[in-house]
Amino acid sequence: MLRLRIDALYAEYAQTIDDDRLESWPEFFAADGKYRVTTRENFGSGLALAMMYCDGRGMMSDRISALRLANIYEPHVYCHLTSSVRIVDSALKEINAQANFAVIRTMQEGEQSIFACGRTYDRIVEVDGRLLFKDRLVVLDSRQVDTLLVIPI
Amino acid sequence: MLRLRIDALYAEYAQTIDDDRLESWPEFFAADGKYRVTTRENFGSGLALAMMYCDGRGMMSDRISALRLANIYEPHVYCHLTSSVRIVDSALKEINAQANFAVIRTMQEGEQSIFACGRTYDRIVEVDGRLLFKDRLVVLDSRQVDTLLVIPI
Amino acid sequence: MLRLRIDALYAEYAQTIDDDRLESWPEFFAADGKYRVTTRENFGSGLALAMMYCDGRGMMSDRISALRLANIYEPHVYCHLTSSVRIVDSALKEINAQANFAVIRTMQEGEQSIFACGRTYDRIVEVDGRLLFKDRLVVLDSRQVDTLLVIPI
Repeated sequence: MLRLRIDALYAEYAQTIDDDRLESWPEFFAADGKYRVTTRENFGSGLALAMMYCDGRGMMSDRISALRLANIYEPHVYCHLTSSVRIVDSALKEINAQANFAVIRTMQEGEQSIFACGRTYDRIVEVDGRLLFKDRLVVLDSRQVDTLLVIPI
Repeated sequence: MLRLRIDALYAEYAQTIDDDRLESWPEFFAADGKYRVTTRENFGSGLALAMMYCDGRGMMSDRISALRLANIYEPHVYCHLTSSVRIVDSALKEINAQANFAVIRTMQEGEQSIFACGRTYDRIVEVDGRLLFKDRLVVLDSRQVDTLLVIPI
Repeated sequence: MLRLRIDALYAEYAQTIDDDRLESWPEFFAADGKYRVTTRENFGSGLALAMMYCDGRGMMSDRISALRLANIYEPHVYCHLTSSVRIVDSALKEINAQANFAVIRTMQEGEQSIFACGRTYDRIVEVDGRLLFKDRLVVLDSRQVDTLLVIPI
């Protein structure tokens, strides 16, 4: 059942990030996969502005390396809540899927808040029997984006 | 699989509201469908008080028209998180389903908060191969209901 | 489908607690089942410190009885949001499953907040055709644990 496979992909993706296994994050993408984070406002007006943008696995790995080296941000972890997973189209070789999400961020001292929420728009392909993101677009409901967007969503 | 069909119904319902496609909201209900929002306190004590009440699709459409015309509230969007979807009974012609939910509200300036959470109690029927709400009861955990309950949950 | 059965187990478990039917909480566990709540910090460093610990159904029932008798805490209810349910291993007689969760707490006066979020690590067994927790480990993302941890998560 495709829906359950998509569920499993989202669950593994979320828990990989939440467990701070960020070096494995690029492996969820096709080699030439794209990752973007934008706001609902920009998305609605067709603007291409992205707060985070990676084109290809190499750029993703670079991003994680930089994050590990710099390490100047206050340590924090994410807890992803994914919901309303919906396959919009699976007729072509790509699967178009959408989901609602919220990320609860916990700072090192224990303070918790809703860091972000919104929608993910994904184009997913199957490569050697594994589902991978060809394009993952994260659209945030809020225009106030914390400067602390270092960890991918 | 019925559970996956119910999941899909909930997901489409949530994303239709979250995308501000409110004119399509009544289409999720049977022609004589009911929609009510109440508090856990009223629900527990058997009180019929509802903070929002619609009897039939016409009344729902009227509500949305009024909301679009009046437009005196501060613009905001919802992000629904649905969870713990459970089919309680599907033996009769109706399906009784329940789910936990939370709604994160984002105001135009970007401020985010948990607007509401609680349980939905749904009676769902199949009409021409499509699942529709015959009765959707939204029970809010909190008695402090924001006066800003303009968009349906 | 095992995933859907695990989903149903989590959903019933969550709604039993959220509905304040706490006397039924121990029935989700095997007779010798274990229940623990710890922090991510302790979990990561291998410390066995638990903020809540029950070994066997009897100890769970005792805990609920005490909670009902003492009743000195400010009344509140939980709303569980469960997400990213993942079966890690089901080859043996036990099923290893993980899920992300958040609990929104609503106090009697209506105040709402994210009470806790994190991960559950479960070992689940089948007894007489019913899935039961043999070991449920709740790992909280935050080290700041509210003193008000009286109701199980």
